[in-house]
Amino acid sequence: MTREELFSQIKLKRSFLCVGLDPDLEKMPASLNGNLFEFNKAIIDATAQYAIAFKPNMAFYEVQGASGITAFEDTVAYIRAHYPDIFIIADAKRGDIGNTSKMYARSFFETMDVDALTVAPYMGEDSITPFLGYKGKWVVVLALTSNKGSLDFQHVEDAHGTPLYMTVLQKTKQWGSADDMMYVCGATQAALLADIRRVVPQHFLLVPGVGAQGGSLEEVAKYGMNSQCGLIVNSSRGIIHASRDDDFAQVAALKAREMQQKMQSLLQDIL
Amino acid sequence: MTREELFSQIKLKRSFLCVGLDPDLEKMPASLNGNLFEFNKAIIDATAQYAIAFKPNMAFYEVQGASGITAFEDTVAYIRAHYPDIFIIADAKRGDIGNTSKMYARSFFETMDVDALTVAPYMGEDSITPFLGYKGKWVVVLALTSNKGSLDFQHVEDAHGTPLYMTVLQKTKQWGSADDMMYVCGATQAALLADIRRVVPQHFLLVPGVGAQGGSLEEVAKYGMNSQCGLIVNSSRGIIHASRDDDFAQVAALKAREMQQKMQSLLQDIL
Repeated sequence: MTREELFSQIKLKRSFLCVGLDPDLEKMPASLNGNLFEFNKAIIDATAQYAIAFKPNMAFYEVQGASGITAFEDTVAYIRAHYPDIFIIADAKRGDIGNTSKMYARSFFETMDVDALTVAPYMGEDSITPFLGYKGKWVVVLALTSNKGSLDFQHVEDAHGTPLYMTVLQKTKQWGSADDMMYVCGATQAALLADIRRVVPQHFLLVPGVGAQGGSLEEVAKYGMNSQCGLIVNSSRGIIHASRDDDFAQVAALKAREMQQKMQSLLQDIL
Repeated sequence: MTREELFSQIKLKRSFLCVGLDPDLEKMPASLNGNLFEFNKAIIDATAQYAIAFKPNMAFYEVQGASGITAFEDTVAYIRAHYPDIFIIADAKRGDIGNTSKMYARSFFETMDVDALTVAPYMGEDSITPFLGYKGKWVVVLALTSNKGSLDFQHVEDAHGTPLYMTVLQKTKQWGSADDMMYVCGATQAALLADIRRVVPQHFLLVPGVGAQGGSLEEVAKYGMNSQCGLIVNSSRGIIHASRDDDFAQVAALKAREMQQKMQSLLQDIL
């Protein structure tokens, strides 16, 4: 999917919502017998009209071994078949030496055929560039994450006072472009999005941390939105596990609709 | 497996070799029809007497989707059944917010039941601590990797001149201990192992980069060995794909034996 197509979807749905498909067995209704794919199908059908993206988190599939991976593959196939305009991000935070990253790129962009993959930058250029060059596919590099541990290394300043996450933005943006690279920037440190926008004005930012983690949607829009929106805001637990009973899909639809309506009003200035 | 047990294996086999199980379909003999598990079985049987550890790299399994994960699971089960004293490291470079890392920990330490997992430090403390506290299991944190891209961020110095990889060592060693944490330190920058040893004298170091990537075993031992060896040196391509023909397992055995013999002489001072 191109940047223009993504923006078209945002305009069409008046939403920049990404629903995180992180199904936690302990929070799924008992009637589903732990069937991840059935759970996802219900969530997808209930929220697709409010979302421009789905983001399955690999950890929640890998925990079931090979059968979990099958559930992941079935989920991707279901979205492709029924909602072909929706952007699919595999949240896997991969990254390794070139030879191995090449293999991960094939896993996610060929075998699993998702649109985007989250990647950790610690190993540098040759761990990231193998993911580039797939037509219509995107690398989403971790810059500033939403968790408390982001303070440990991402905020370490170099001799010039530049924090590591800024160095990551400055270097990695030279390896790709705003047409094949995005950044993870957490909502829990929303005011920093203004600084980030000075370095990457055009790039899409994938923003976790709204909802269960406490970030504010209004602040994210205030500091992070650009003329093509430039934001994909994710909510996982706050939508998919808002109810742990058999009405989980209806409640998820309500929660997704609530977010879409807030987003619609935040989009007014640019649409 | 405890640190003492690992050292016992090193003494018994006079080896600190880890064989990387990264089977590349394009380098496997045609007669195997791309069967990863059959390939691994032959490699494991041929090299187990020279190795104290096997390190399957998840990328090479994920590329085949769910069936690749089955091959990975079968490989782990095979090693457990036939070579129960061998240490198994899943090379997956995971790491995410606490809630997700907890799920990855369950994936690798419960579902897949390996002994150790490689983890990327970029997301900080709450991305790493969920992997600790599993009895006999190990977290292997990326510190200084063997690839060219390690120069991009790992060597960035803070205001006091401390490079990031040193900050990673200094902080993370407070979260675990030498009994549940190891570090990835690449052989391609072996002289830096002397500095690293000053910060983590007791910890085991998992050292990639000998062989195909050009690192020297002698230098790794010179700068990195401690009184309990403290080194697990990995070779993947240099052993498992040394021959691409039907004699791949015999050639792998020869290559592994060559390394074991060099290691035996390097261990003389401490055994």
